[in-house]
Amino acid sequence: MTTKAAEPFARDALEQILKRRFFYAPSFEIYGGVAGLHDYGPPGCAFQANIIDTWRKYFVLEEDMLEVDCTMLTPYEVFKTSGHVDKFADWMCRDLKTGEIFRADHLVEEVLEARLKGDKAARGQTAASEGDDKKKRKSKVKEIQNIRLADEVVEEYEAVLNKIDGYSGEGLGELITKYNIVNPSNGNPLESPVQFNLMFETAIGPSGQLKGYLRPETAQGQFLNFSKLLECNNERMPFASASIGKSFRNEISPRAGLLRGREFLMAEIEHFVDPEDKSHPRFAEVKDTVLSFLPQDVQEAGSNELQQVTVGEAVASGMVDNETLGYFIARIYVFLVKIGVDPSRLRFRQHISNEMAHYASDCWDAELQTSYGWIECVGCADRSAYDLSVHAARTKEKLVVRKPLPEPVTVEKFEVDLDKKKFGPKFRKDAGAIQKHLLESTQCELEDLAAQLAANGKIDVDVAGAGKFTVEADLIKIERVKRVEHVREFTPNVIEPSFGIGRIIYSIFEHSFWSRPEDKDRCVLSLPPLVAPTKVLVVPLSNHADLVPLVGKISAALRKEQIPFKVDDSSASIGKRYARNDELGTPFGITIDFETVKDGTVTLRERDSTKQMRGDLAAIVKAVKKITYSGVSWAEGTRELAPFESSEA
Amino acid sequence: MTTKAAEPFARDALEQILKRRFFYAPSFEIYGGVAGLHDYGPPGCAFQANIIDTWRKYFVLEEDMLEVDCTMLTPYEVFKTSGHVDKFADWMCRDLKTGEIFRADHLVEEVLEARLKGDKAARGQTAASEGDDKKKRKSKVKEIQNIRLADEVVEEYEAVLNKIDGYSGEGLGELITKYNIVNPSNGNPLESPVQFNLMFETAIGPSGQLKGYLRPETAQGQFLNFSKLLECNNERMPFASASIGKSFRNEISPRAGLLRGREFLMAEIEHFVDPEDKSHPRFAEVKDTVLSFLPQDVQEAGSNELQQVTVGEAVASGMVDNETLGYFIARIYVFLVKIGVDPSRLRFRQHISNEMAHYASDCWDAELQTSYGWIECVGCADRSAYDLSVHAARTKEKLVVRKPLPEPVTVEKFEVDLDKKKFGPKFRKDAGAIQKHLLESTQCELEDLAAQLAANGKIDVDVAGAGKFTVEADLIKIERVKRVEHVREFTPNVIEPSFGIGRIIYSIFEHSFWSRPEDKDRCVLSLPPLVAPTKVLVVPLSNHADLVPLVGKISAALRKEQIPFKVDDSSASIGKRYARNDELGTPFGITIDFETVKDGTVTLRERDSTKQMRGDLAAIVKAVKKITYSGVSWAEGTRELAPFESSEA
Repeated sequence: MTTKAAEPFARDALEQILKRRFFYAPSFEIYGGVAGLHDYGPPGCAFQANIIDTWRKYFVLEEDMLEVDCTMLTPYEVFKTSGHVDKFADWMCRDLKTGEIFRADHLVEEVLEARLKGDKAARGQTAASEGDDKKKRKSKVKEIQNIRLADEVVEEYEAVLNKIDGYSGEGLGELITKYNIVNPSNGNPLESPVQFNLMFETAIGPSGQLKGYLRPETAQGQFLNFSKLLECNNERMPFASASIGKSFRNEISPRAGLLRGREFLMAEIEHFVDPEDKSHPRFAEVKDTVLSFLPQDVQEAGSNELQQVTVGEAVASGMVDNETLGYFIARIYVFLVKIGVDPSRLRFRQHISNEMAHYASDCWDAELQTSYGWIECVGCADRSAYDLSVHAARTKEKLVVRKPLPEPVTVEKFEVDLDKKKFGPKFRKDAGAIQKHLLESTQCELEDLAAQLAANGKIDVDVAGAGKFTVEADLIKIERVKRVEHVREFTPNVIEPSFGIGRIIYSIFEHSFWSRPEDKDRCVLSLPPLVAPTKVLVVPLSNHADLVPLVGKISAALRKEQIPFKVDDSSASIGKRYARNDELGTPFGITIDFETVKDGTVTLRERDSTKQMRGDLAAIVKAVKKITYSGVSWAEGTRELAPFESSEA
Repeated sequence: MTTKAAEPFARDALEQILKRRFFYAPSFEIYGGVAGLHDYGPPGCAFQANIIDTWRKYFVLEEDMLEVDCTMLTPYEVFKTSGHVDKFADWMCRDLKTGEIFRADHLVEEVLEARLKGDKAARGQTAASEGDDKKKRKSKVKEIQNIRLADEVVEEYEAVLNKIDGYSGEGLGELITKYNIVNPSNGNPLESPVQFNLMFETAIGPSGQLKGYLRPETAQGQFLNFSKLLECNNERMPFASASIGKSFRNEISPRAGLLRGREFLMAEIEHFVDPEDKSHPRFAEVKDTVLSFLPQDVQEAGSNELQQVTVGEAVASGMVDNETLGYFIARIYVFLVKIGVDPSRLRFRQHISNEMAHYASDCWDAELQTSYGWIECVGCADRSAYDLSVHAARTKEKLVVRKPLPEPVTVEKFEVDLDKKKFGPKFRKDAGAIQKHLLESTQCELEDLAAQLAANGKIDVDVAGAGKFTVEADLIKIERVKRVEHVREFTPNVIEPSFGIGRIIYSIFEHSFWSRPEDKDRCVLSLPPLVAPTKVLVVPLSNHADLVPLVGKISAALRKEQIPFKVDDSSASIGKRYARNDELGTPFGITIDFETVKDGTVTLRERDSTKQMRGDLAAIVKAVKKITYSGVSWAEGTRELAPFESSEA
């Protein structure tokens, strides 16, 4: 299919087909729709279900993961602890006169990009072509004025755009003032950026007092069930949990269809691993996979040149931090290609330090190239021990692994010994808080306190919420003691591959879409048979009564093998019926003609090549099943059938 | 499995196993949990996924339904139109002193039931046994006082309880006053019942001005896409859409685990049918299925005696309104039995007139008997043309089917002819509204207006939002005209089978649970192989090094056939490992022993009978596959294997 990428991508043609065939459409369209919400129609829904089914087999079953299904409704406290209440936000600014709302980083980006384009035009250079930019979307800036900028301004703008994902609200506010950015549609001034939390809020229960959110990721449910999952796994490490379900983000300005919606399907894996041993038992199986990497340092040097190396080399050189991360990167690659991603339009980009989510310590994104630019479709983040630690601290539940040591070890550590009887009379209502504060001190803090106590015969403590107190030596002892430990207790680190299914689906549509060179209007979606919504279109040559029972017979044979199929017995020409079918991405057609009445043979047509083969019904069904579910090629799968020549009139 | 229902159901034992094996658990348990929210752990999640997969094959693929995936977030306007904003509510009443909230109907029910029990005890009769009551739950009434009631009071209470689902808020308020119902835990008075809408509310978008809800059912998304779906189906009728997804109801007092949660999985079918022809093409295939029916009239006569008749007879006698409803009732039955429901604990109960949802014109529930009583698990409602009509009226989009008439027909109807030029000068700003009002009048209204116009030479119209106006005869003509029509246009009726997956799952747990007669503590979940979370447990006899490579070989063979399995190579005895396995509902065990090293044969164990067969690996895998996915019996599936005797020590 060398035709696919030969010319500028015909996004309009694709969108028309996706709409006409109801792959997806705006939700509530008869009510005018709601930005960021889409419904999948029958072919889109089946495609999505097949991708999920493949994901479940490829990850959950193949790797023996523990799949869970947790609720979307989540109480406030959980997201307060995880940091989402305070940090899961974008910056928005408002046109003070009209109330129009902009997402601040997008607005700055669009305005500066428009000015750079205008500058290029003024300099007589052509503007950059579609595919080159990092992101392409419906810009708020409608008109581009051809104004030449000073060379140093161009450089400044470019520097800003390179790190636009990393600005704080204050930083964005400064850019808006400095570059005199206003509402592009009316020139009105904008208020300073304010934080807008992206979680949908609701109230749980009839009292209205329990505040809740719709989850913005499926991960937290997996973390909260960590101890139960570890038990399910017979206390063995490492192991992974997985979850498939909807998440919600109240985007300030949703756009580009499935690429940035407010409700979207995710498939997430949380792989729990010993922080001291991030090797992976199956790493050897993937280490020779060659991938395109775009590491942090290359980007920070202002380049986007891809590094083609094996996963083994990437881990050995330290570019990818550890085997587990490398293992998942390779597995993500194989999965994406299996479901229809074009490997030449897939890269792994490392996050630069200022764009990392608040919980991530490292992150590689699988990005897919589309007409909107490179789109993050799978994140593969090392969340370290962040989530388990904060939930454990908040709930006082231990979320740890206890691993027997091969040999007992002697450790020295500081221990606190309180004379609890004296605390009450001395500190009264604050006694509990002070004791708790002291008992929960870290080893470093205890070392300091021990020194203070030795030097002064008392210590000063500052207890959050209670105040400052002095504790005399008769109430407390802090000593370094030796203990023999038989068990190592640790909080696991988490490697998280997180798949945005809607974004992957849209990218595959672009990667699979082309039109036949002999007729531009005949478009094809070359979805792989494994995930195509329908596998077979059954086409009787005409409505002749002799053919009707054969349709029933073929339908029964396909149904028995659980091969999804459709019958098109409309009066349209065979060619027209196959053309519809090509738009739906159906890989096979079975034609019933008058020969079938005589000898039971039918024709099998392959969508991309339009090649046809002839054989008896059983052989044809067998070929379809093998190619679809066992992944053999058309040539291999149809070896026992006879070639057949006919024109698609 | 005659042991299953032999004695009172051991709900505690089941609940312990479901918890210990993490079938499901309260969400956010380490935060104290939130009532009505549950997470599925690995076995529960796999069981649910298998049920959904079976549902999709059995309904969507088998019946060629159009599956869609619509958003849960829904704007206010949609549910305002569908009637949910005004009517999807329960009645709650509050303890005025403590603020405690009760669901009014449940409270009345529980208090009267407790008084009746106390009466029985006072009369020296034993209280009714667990299974007899319609509903069993954790009652708010903790203490039952043995007080004898007057005979007529007993009768009155029983009459109230029989129709408790049908009271309005006012009615419930009267009962609370009349029977002096107070907060059972402290005797405080209660405020009058107020309506509490069960939808979770949120705001969509950054302005906070677009009010939205989480859908309480998946149906509306299907209705709103009706025209697109009809087009997908090549404009042919009848057809069905289907949807699988989460819905949300903010229950006042959630209870009984999965039976009444606030977030739950539904699978819904909307079958669109010509209101003048509700026959079903495949009805003949199901008509001889004998089912247990509990029709409206029997209940209204105060009985709950089941009628055992065929679906064919039920439709012929008019007890079930039409073939399509009958067809789905029979299909629901077969599906439920296939996934593990005990057919002797399944009945179809017709709603009595006062309990019908606001949109339903008839409804049959598939109810499953559990230790909580008979639980509605699948509703099968005739929603008539209600939803399509109200959305069409609100949006002015036609949601209709146009069906070519076999022969053109001549119809007489009233038509309005307005002299639009004169309206503007005469009515000025109201001209548009008056014209619209007149043009949208129904045939009945036009008949009245035509009579007025003929009698008085003018008509009086009352335009909502604009006022009253008089229109003179020179501005309007209303005449009865004859038209030849070639097409019949109609709004389809909708038959809706709606599955509550969580309730079905819990009921199947109860229906499959039993303990071995020889040892009460050895419990078994006899889940059908098709839907069991894991199909095979692989058990090496010991950790001997000779057995390890065989575990790998068997795992590879099972993985190749995509048969979900687990390995248990712990040091527990074989018997203990199988006992765990029985609790997880795993139907097959494959034991690897030292014979395996010599001749490659393994033992296959069946969970319910603990029977064992011996054969080579390939034959054993083939048997597992056949029994699990082709539905053949154990005897049939293992015919080629040799019986094997051994004790489960």
